[in-house]
Amino acid sequence: MEQKHTLSVLVENHAGVLSRVAGLFSRRGFNIDSLAVGETTNPGISRITIVVKGDDYIVDQVSKQLNKLVDVIKIKIFKASEYVGRELVLIKVNAPAASRAEVMQLVDIFRANIVDVSTQTLTVEISADQEKISALMSLLDHFGILEVVRTGMIAIERGSAADHIL
Amino acid sequence: MEQKHTLSVLVENHAGVLSRVAGLFSRRGFNIDSLAVGETTNPGISRITIVVKGDDYIVDQVSKQLNKLVDVIKIKIFKASEYVGRELVLIKVNAPAASRAEVMQLVDIFRANIVDVSTQTLTVEISADQEKISALMSLLDHFGILEVVRTGMIAIERGSAADHIL
Repeated sequence: MEQKHTLSVLVENHAGVLSRVAGLFSRRGFNIDSLAVGETTNPGISRITIVVKGDDYIVDQVSKQLNKLVDVIKIKIFKASEYVGRELVLIKVNAPAASRAEVMQLVDIFRANIVDVSTQTLTVEISADQEKISALMSLLDHFGILEVVRTGMIAIERGSAADHIL
Repeated sequence: MEQKHTLSVLVENHAGVLSRVAGLFSRRGFNIDSLAVGETTNPGISRITIVVKGDDYIVDQVSKQLNKLVDVIKIKIFKASEYVGRELVLIKVNAPAASRAEVMQLVDIFRANIVDVSTQTLTVEISADQEKISALMSLLDHFGILEVVRTGMIAIERGSAADHIL
């Protein structure tokens, strides 16, 4: 069954590693929904979080191919119940004086934040799971969304288990 | 002078585009600090936010090369004063009963959130600028950071200007 899979990949921070990892997916016709590469506290190591659609068999195959890349240190494929998934989204929404209060109410209800304001717009920051982000965006859509910037989802294992590579 | 540059690149959502964009940086020996690819509200278009170190001349050259890629729609290079930059970080920190209250105080002060708890750990979510994230991480370091997952920075232009490609 086609479903979303979340992969967390620790890699050596060498030139070209990101291009090789992304290339491995595209050569297999895999559509990457989102990808986020962040630093770890070890300057030589980065973590790539990838969300892809596909069936279990193909994800398993890609994971085996990833493991063969020399710069890949470790791969985790998360199952829905075992991780906390979060994404950060910045949304610039149409909000002249007449509708500003109403937009601010929504921001409060969703525990989002306002990070910028102009006479005609508000820029809203929300960090949440996919469901909550979709809900806020569909509500803000009534006012007119002007621009959206998303990080892609990141994920961390529930409980005390840890990579000990920071 | 070597400094950090933030690029926001709108791309057609075709297979291989991410690999080509990342490859363009690595072939020039450019070290990508972070990269985040997120969906836009147009399913055919994604936005890539890239943070790189390098001098102005080289960033300008890479930007010209990016513009030549067929899947690249638009590039913005942000100057420090003109954008809001934010990153989302998940931090799993050592927090047995004896130190849990102290960790929770820090979380409150930084307006961060606790997203998971176990008998020995807390998982903290913070969405902020680089300075605030560094400050929280160096404070949590005293308790023992077990794992860090970062999205990489995303950026949105201040004021009402917008791409109108969502």
